[in-house]
Amino acid sequence: MKYTAGEIGKFLNGVIEGNPEVEVNSISKIEEGTEGSISFLANPKYSKYIYKTKASIVIVNKDFEAEKEISSTLIRVDDAYNSFASLLELYNKNKEAKKGIAKNSFIEKSAKKGKNIYVGHFAYIGENAKIGNNVQIYPQVYIGNNVTIEDNTILYAGVKVFANCKIGKDCIIHGGTVIGSDGFGFAAKSNKDYKKVPQIGNVIIEDNVEIGANTSIDRATLGSTIIRKGVKIDNLVQIAHNVEIGENSVIVAQVGVAGSTRIGKNCIIAGQVGVNGHITVADGVMVGAQSGVTSSVKKEGSVLLGSPAIDLSIQRRSLILFKKLPELQKEISRLNKMLDKLKKQYID
Amino acid sequence: MKYTAGEIGKFLNGVIEGNPEVEVNSISKIEEGTEGSISFLANPKYSKYIYKTKASIVIVNKDFEAEKEISSTLIRVDDAYNSFASLLELYNKNKEAKKGIAKNSFIEKSAKKGKNIYVGHFAYIGENAKIGNNVQIYPQVYIGNNVTIEDNTILYAGVKVFANCKIGKDCIIHGGTVIGSDGFGFAAKSNKDYKKVPQIGNVIIEDNVEIGANTSIDRATLGSTIIRKGVKIDNLVQIAHNVEIGENSVIVAQVGVAGSTRIGKNCIIAGQVGVNGHITVADGVMVGAQSGVTSSVKKEGSVLLGSPAIDLSIQRRSLILFKKLPELQKEISRLNKMLDKLKKQYID
Amino acid sequence: MKYTAGEIGKFLNGVIEGNPEVEVNSISKIEEGTEGSISFLANPKYSKYIYKTKASIVIVNKDFEAEKEISSTLIRVDDAYNSFASLLELYNKNKEAKKGIAKNSFIEKSAKKGKNIYVGHFAYIGENAKIGNNVQIYPQVYIGNNVTIEDNTILYAGVKVFANCKIGKDCIIHGGTVIGSDGFGFAAKSNKDYKKVPQIGNVIIEDNVEIGANTSIDRATLGSTIIRKGVKIDNLVQIAHNVEIGENSVIVAQVGVAGSTRIGKNCIIAGQVGVNGHITVADGVMVGAQSGVTSSVKKEGSVLLGSPAIDLSIQRRSLILFKKLPELQKEISRLNKMLDKLKKQYID
Repeated sequence: MKYTAGEIGKFLNGVIEGNPEVEVNSISKIEEGTEGSISFLANPKYSKYIYKTKASIVIVNKDFEAEKEISSTLIRVDDAYNSFASLLELYNKNKEAKKGIAKNSFIEKSAKKGKNIYVGHFAYIGENAKIGNNVQIYPQVYIGNNVTIEDNTILYAGVKVFANCKIGKDCIIHGGTVIGSDGFGFAAKSNKDYKKVPQIGNVIIEDNVEIGANTSIDRATLGSTIIRKGVKIDNLVQIAHNVEIGENSVIVAQVGVAGSTRIGKNCIIAGQVGVNGHITVADGVMVGAQSGVTSSVKKEGSVLLGSPAIDLSIQRRSLILFKKLPELQKEISRLNKMLDKLKKQYID
Repeated sequence: MKYTAGEIGKFLNGVIEGNPEVEVNSISKIEEGTEGSISFLANPKYSKYIYKTKASIVIVNKDFEAEKEISSTLIRVDDAYNSFASLLELYNKNKEAKKGIAKNSFIEKSAKKGKNIYVGHFAYIGENAKIGNNVQIYPQVYIGNNVTIEDNTILYAGVKVFANCKIGKDCIIHGGTVIGSDGFGFAAKSNKDYKKVPQIGNVIIEDNVEIGANTSIDRATLGSTIIRKGVKIDNLVQIAHNVEIGENSVIVAQVGVAGSTRIGKNCIIAGQVGVNGHITVADGVMVGAQSGVTSSVKKEGSVLLGSPAIDLSIQRRSLILFKKLPELQKEISRLNKMLDKLKKQYID
Repeated sequence: MKYTAGEIGKFLNGVIEGNPEVEVNSISKIEEGTEGSISFLANPKYSKYIYKTKASIVIVNKDFEAEKEISSTLIRVDDAYNSFASLLELYNKNKEAKKGIAKNSFIEKSAKKGKNIYVGHFAYIGENAKIGNNVQIYPQVYIGNNVTIEDNTILYAGVKVFANCKIGKDCIIHGGTVIGSDGFGFAAKSNKDYKKVPQIGNVIIEDNVEIGANTSIDRATLGSTIIRKGVKIDNLVQIAHNVEIGENSVIVAQVGVAGSTRIGKNCIIAGQVGVNGHITVADGVMVGAQSGVTSSVKKEGSVLLGSPAIDLSIQRRSLILFKKLPELQKEISRLNKMLDKLKKQYID
């Protein structure tokens, strides 16, 4: 199916610059744009491609200023990435949701099933589990006893949700992720052996949360590990027992959050960051990749970097000087020599 | 069921302070304590909550000194966390162990099954595997040929144990963990391509080991990757081929141990640490989070931090000065100027 | 079956030193060598073992110089590790490949099956999937719709390959790995909530790639995430959407590569490294463990270390001085005092 720049501009509430009659029937990356495709430019790193792309239409930010001639028709919008996301969403809606319960899945009799659900092959649903309407459970998913999954949530192949955990509406959990494994709790015994501390709490995931592949979220010792609504968690992330992640916070791949820590709302924790246990991170905090947050962050909106993580601006200055340490050392020894010489000549 | 402070105190061998008749029927976190519940205080960070908790009973360490009035009945014990673990254990015992072999699991005929085992739906047990008594194999577990699993061990949903590996008694392995994947061994060829080095060894896990979710432990090239008895490994940990982890060592989430390294007994390796290959770490060594252990650690009981990891006390001093590098630089240039001035005035 | 040193020497194109008639029937590590076994010495760290090993034969590099008497027969070859790999390969060939389609697997009717394939218990193969000849699909593997798997590839238990992804010939993917989960793409909305950016691309894995256990490789937003031929990826690695890894590059355990980054050919990225998004890494680059590559690396063959990663030689010098920061500080304050004194005596 084909759409004109005019039609798409109307859908996105954008302003056309160029030929409104040009037609597209596919979506492309700007650096690989082909005739008949629509692309977008949001990240300035990719600006250079807009002058040579063959994409027939490019969605750009309202304030984009061209430095050279552009052959594509432009659609100017408030937020090019967001508009592009809307187009992809539209495109994606053509895919039908999976439906039906595979004969070789297994659902315990006491489980409650919503309307219109999909349960794939070799999926297992435990006793007294409650599955909401339109829930999609892919093959080889495990849902333990007393688990609740609310409406429209998707669990991709191989997800494991252990007993008593609760997952809200409109969530997406990617393949291989484990929800509700035991927290890592052991009491030291006198003989240097450890005694397991039973983990009798659960995990609560609120609405509109997305969790990547092969991530693990441990159940609480007591009470709940809580992922608040709108949180986005990437692949291979570790969330320990009794952690709470605040609304709309973003946790990038391979981050680890240690036990009983509370992360505020609207935070962004970049890849491979470690967050210490039993601390509190204020709302709106941003932590740079590979940092280690060792103590509570009280100031909202702090921007931190490094291991241990400190204020970004301080860290940056120190990092620059770190590279110059050999120069600093030379400088010191030069001063030393000069001073020695001076001392010998004039003082001794 | 309800218990009095007196009854619990007797069970824990503790000393009652307050009303021995007060009754509880649930367990709570101290910061969320409700009337009729029992809680505990072990981590001093949480001391402030004991003065306002509504928990009817709080278990505390023998030497805890109250700074204000406490309304809860206290039970003083040698180790509050340990005693609390015992209570949770007692509470947990009411849960019945899973039993029975699901019809839609598959067990090869040559496999040997112990008494009283649980094999969940869509679990697979390979040829000549030996499953001990009371072993619990959750749904979608894979057990390869010739694998041995000894008595009372639990494999949670989605665990994969590949051919020839051995798992001891009383172990717990959490969801999604892979035991016995091939070690990462390749021989460089002249054309920059690599030739796979077949990995024909196995993994041996001794008794009383707990391993978290989505962890991977590779089989040895030759011989065995060995996890000694009592070791506790957290989620998303990487143990490479031919590694050996000594008795009762603790490996926290997202740690990676490279090939052929031997870690001693009673070590604690904190989260996100990397340990280099072909090195030896002495008994009782502690490594701080995100550190990188690059060479063998010979001194027992060393405490290390940083990447590369060095003695904690040295690292700490350097880390403090790292933040002050801009000040040090200023100091140096001030000295420089002074000296220049001095030189000009008196020497030139 | 037994082989003489002479026979093995001929097979490896090596030179015998010692008794060519000595026989072996097993393979051992040099530090655990037993009579009747063959071992190898490649890593100089293990040289000390060659003087006491009981292995009947040891394969060594052509240029190995003995410092003491060795009782084993030696076979000198160009590359001992490579030759040893060849022997293991030979040894391993006796293992028969798995064959046959388990009755309790499920293959959609529209899927195309090659000759001689193995499909294990509880494996699922989706619509219009194409499975090449001799492909081995272990139990509990998930293969989504329209996936292509070419000849001789092995997917171990629990691997999940989502819709539209393509895997080449002679690949090995270890247990629990997820290929084709959604990329982590969200567009910020004005209310601090996020809108999912649909990920409509796929993952392409070329021939002769090996991928470890519990790794995740995300599908592209548009186009493809590409793993070029001969790449070797270890366990628990994160490859984000639209990344490209060049031919024969090696990615060690727990590395994370952020979105849209291109890594060149013949690179070696050591364990726990993080590579920033939207950057390019030149061919032949080596990055030391735990480093953070924050910006594009243009020079081929660069060797980098640290977070942020800089040239290894510079990093090393700075790291040495980092440990000496307390000394540098003392030096500076000593200079300061001297200068003060000087000033007082001669200038004031």
